[in-house]
Amino acid sequence: MNNIQRGIAEFIGTFWLVLGGCGSAVISAAFPEVGIGLLGVSLAFGLTVVTMAFAIGHISGCHLNPAITFGLWAGGRFDARDIPLYVASQTLGAIAAAFTLYVIATGKADYSLAAHGLAANGVGEASPGGYAMATGFLVEVLLAFFFLFVIMGATDAKAPAGFAPLAIGLTLALIHLISIPVTNTSVNPARSTGPALVVGGVALQQLWLFWVAPILGGLIGGFVYKELNKTTV
Amino acid sequence: MNNIQRGIAEFIGTFWLVLGGCGSAVISAAFPEVGIGLLGVSLAFGLTVVTMAFAIGHISGCHLNPAITFGLWAGGRFDARDIPLYVASQTLGAIAAAFTLYVIATGKADYSLAAHGLAANGVGEASPGGYAMATGFLVEVLLAFFFLFVIMGATDAKAPAGFAPLAIGLTLALIHLISIPVTNTSVNPARSTGPALVVGGVALQQLWLFWVAPILGGLIGGFVYKELNKTTV
Amino acid sequence: MNNIQRGIAEFIGTFWLVLGGCGSAVISAAFPEVGIGLLGVSLAFGLTVVTMAFAIGHISGCHLNPAITFGLWAGGRFDARDIPLYVASQTLGAIAAAFTLYVIATGKADYSLAAHGLAANGVGEASPGGYAMATGFLVEVLLAFFFLFVIMGATDAKAPAGFAPLAIGLTLALIHLISIPVTNTSVNPARSTGPALVVGGVALQQLWLFWVAPILGGLIGGFVYKELNKTTV
Amino acid sequence: MNNIQRGIAEFIGTFWLVLGGCGSAVISAAFPEVGIGLLGVSLAFGLTVVTMAFAIGHISGCHLNPAITFGLWAGGRFDARDIPLYVASQTLGAIAAAFTLYVIATGKADYSLAAHGLAANGVGEASPGGYAMATGFLVEVLLAFFFLFVIMGATDAKAPAGFAPLAIGLTLALIHLISIPVTNTSVNPARSTGPALVVGGVALQQLWLFWVAPILGGLIGGFVYKELNKTTV
Repeated sequence: MNNIQRGIAEFIGTFWLVLGGCGSAVISAAFPEVGIGLLGVSLAFGLTVVTMAFAIGHISGCHLNPAITFGLWAGGRFDARDIPLYVASQTLGAIAAAFTLYVIATGKADYSLAAHGLAANGVGEASPGGYAMATGFLVEVLLAFFFLFVIMGATDAKAPAGFAPLAIGLTLALIHLISIPVTNTSVNPARSTGPALVVGGVALQQLWLFWVAPILGGLIGGFVYKELNKTTV
Repeated sequence: MNNIQRGIAEFIGTFWLVLGGCGSAVISAAFPEVGIGLLGVSLAFGLTVVTMAFAIGHISGCHLNPAITFGLWAGGRFDARDIPLYVASQTLGAIAAAFTLYVIATGKADYSLAAHGLAANGVGEASPGGYAMATGFLVEVLLAFFFLFVIMGATDAKAPAGFAPLAIGLTLALIHLISIPVTNTSVNPARSTGPALVVGGVALQQLWLFWVAPILGGLIGGFVYKELNKTTV
Repeated sequence: MNNIQRGIAEFIGTFWLVLGGCGSAVISAAFPEVGIGLLGVSLAFGLTVVTMAFAIGHISGCHLNPAITFGLWAGGRFDARDIPLYVASQTLGAIAAAFTLYVIATGKADYSLAAHGLAANGVGEASPGGYAMATGFLVEVLLAFFFLFVIMGATDAKAPAGFAPLAIGLTLALIHLISIPVTNTSVNPARSTGPALVVGGVALQQLWLFWVAPILGGLIGGFVYKELNKTTV
Repeated sequence: MNNIQRGIAEFIGTFWLVLGGCGSAVISAAFPEVGIGLLGVSLAFGLTVVTMAFAIGHISGCHLNPAITFGLWAGGRFDARDIPLYVASQTLGAIAAAFTLYVIATGKADYSLAAHGLAANGVGEASPGGYAMATGFLVEVLLAFFFLFVIMGATDAKAPAGFAPLAIGLTLALIHLISIPVTNTSVNPARSTGPALVVGGVALQQLWLFWVAPILGGLIGGFVYKELNKTTV
């Protein structure tokens, strides 16, 4: 596959991640009586990756996330020259999805951005559960570390073939089950950027955190797995 | 397999999709205290496809959905001559399931079609969350696009073998997690036709939308995946 | 494997099905504030089969259900001579599990059999949602039909290898998502017999229905799949 | 892989199990309106094992649990000499995770250990549903028995290759669906030790039970599966 194909695949895949994950949060999470809640949103985020990884894993590797792209580079699995292409495609896909989701949300008469938001990430005053910024930073680093550690392991030549999309997508679901109350869960700078650009305000001011922490965690996760698996004398 | 076998398989499979998906919505979603909610209904729709695709994938390909049949044709994977057989079998299966579900629902003394419906699709006044018709149209096109894009990718010779039923069924579950409040989620003209014929009224008046939008999205999804994967010079 | 090994495997497996499925219903479904609800119970029933099928599929085939044993015979996949061994082992396992679950339930001071039951199946006055006996009969036949149809298909030599435990277990989960309000969901005479013997009363009087309907549906499902797949001239 | 690599893998994996399972319980289970409940916590525990087993199964076997390590030894699958390394690594990983989770939990201003706990296991007065100690002991033995029985079966050479992580993780999810109200679900002495050391008090006094019962059940489960599968003359 050439770079245009891979870039388009990453764009479409990350669009799907934000449309499905943030979309289910905005549209279905708190629907009266029968809403899907944080459990449903967690599964939705996870399933965007499960499904898209089966669909485009053979085209681009299906990163859909700059933290994964950087982490796989740190793990020796990805060429540094391709990082800009991937990160740009992912970020553009996420932004396009966030604006599309905004258009959809406003199709409901009583929706307002101020009152209902767009599933942006946040800490401190903007944390769903009121968690401090330092806690949010720690959680994003820690969960991105485990995310990359699992990705490296599940795509290892010694792991069972074909199951990586399930392993990776279900890890993202699990990460959301743990941490939506803390930061609304990012571990993905592109996913954070889309809603932040639509919503603005605090989400935009805190956006740096959701680039720095997930990429830092991802770099460590990819590196630790690589070192752990070095053949011993 | 001959055409009779394939047609019967599509009939049985689409019957299962409507019985399981619409059935769980009508019977279990709002059960007092312990109802399965929209999350349970989403999983039910998805599992009808997961399970039936393992059962009849080798007989008919397990489309169960005219939008898939048209989309796979646009993707160069399905012969145009077989479209009428498939679409007719799917639609008849869905209609039979909807009437069967109506018989089951009336086994509960306080059920009434007017009050409880039959999980028909709708927009505007008939949208569960009150979403506008244009929004419903956009959502059905967009989600059918991604549905076909994933189906094309997950059944690609380069994708992991055997996992397509999971990938495709979980995509349908995800689509429901996102969009039940918008249109009650169709992405499947046959699934919409069954309940509409039983319920009548607005559901029947709006039925055109649930034929046009999912098939349009499916055609684009199949075509885009095909073009994206063309080998490059 | 010899008959003793296969019988023990069916006993242990059906014990697991009743302990896990009925156990989650009795212990966790209506736990205050955070109970797992009918969705959790549906997944629990499904996962008992998913997990045990991976564990003992290679020993006994993991039927855990007389309707499956009869249905596979009707489908030409099981020897009639082994039916008594399987059905007896399944029923004894289910009875042992039901009594064990009763012992566990009484470990909570305010539990009473009269008030909380033991997840027995029922129709009419004993139907969770008040569904008529004829409706319950129809639903049990219909769902057992689809259960066997999927089992036959997913274990067909032409289906993807290794996935049958997932396909079959998830079908049972889906069946519960649809029908717990109707009959508390059986599709399994052994599963119905265990709690009925502990609870007595109406559950015991109606037990015949949960032997006749699931086995009837299973026989038809196995037979229809076999006929549908006959090679054509 | 050498012992250092295997020990580190068990440490990281058990850290993940406690962070993900207990973390989702503490942070997300009872979140207002949209909390994930016991169903979400059950899935979280299960997914920690599913995901980590794909990631490190090829390094250490991914036990993450002294009851599994002992049970696999009883089943003839694990060398007694490696038990101390595994159990120590698991326990240290669980303790590190519990203290990390405590740091995260205190990032929310109104959190207090006394009021919200740290998902410690307990019986009698400390049982979430008020179940007696003898019941808790029985349930932990019984569920650990089935856990090891499934693990032995799903990793048998005759079971479908590659699916063991799913089978084993989903068994842990199912075990939680059944038994959180009884003991808050352990079946894992390391998982119990972490929170008990942070919380102290009753959790520490009852910690012996969550070492004895799961290991006892695991030993029986591993042994029974081994005996059941002995080739017959």
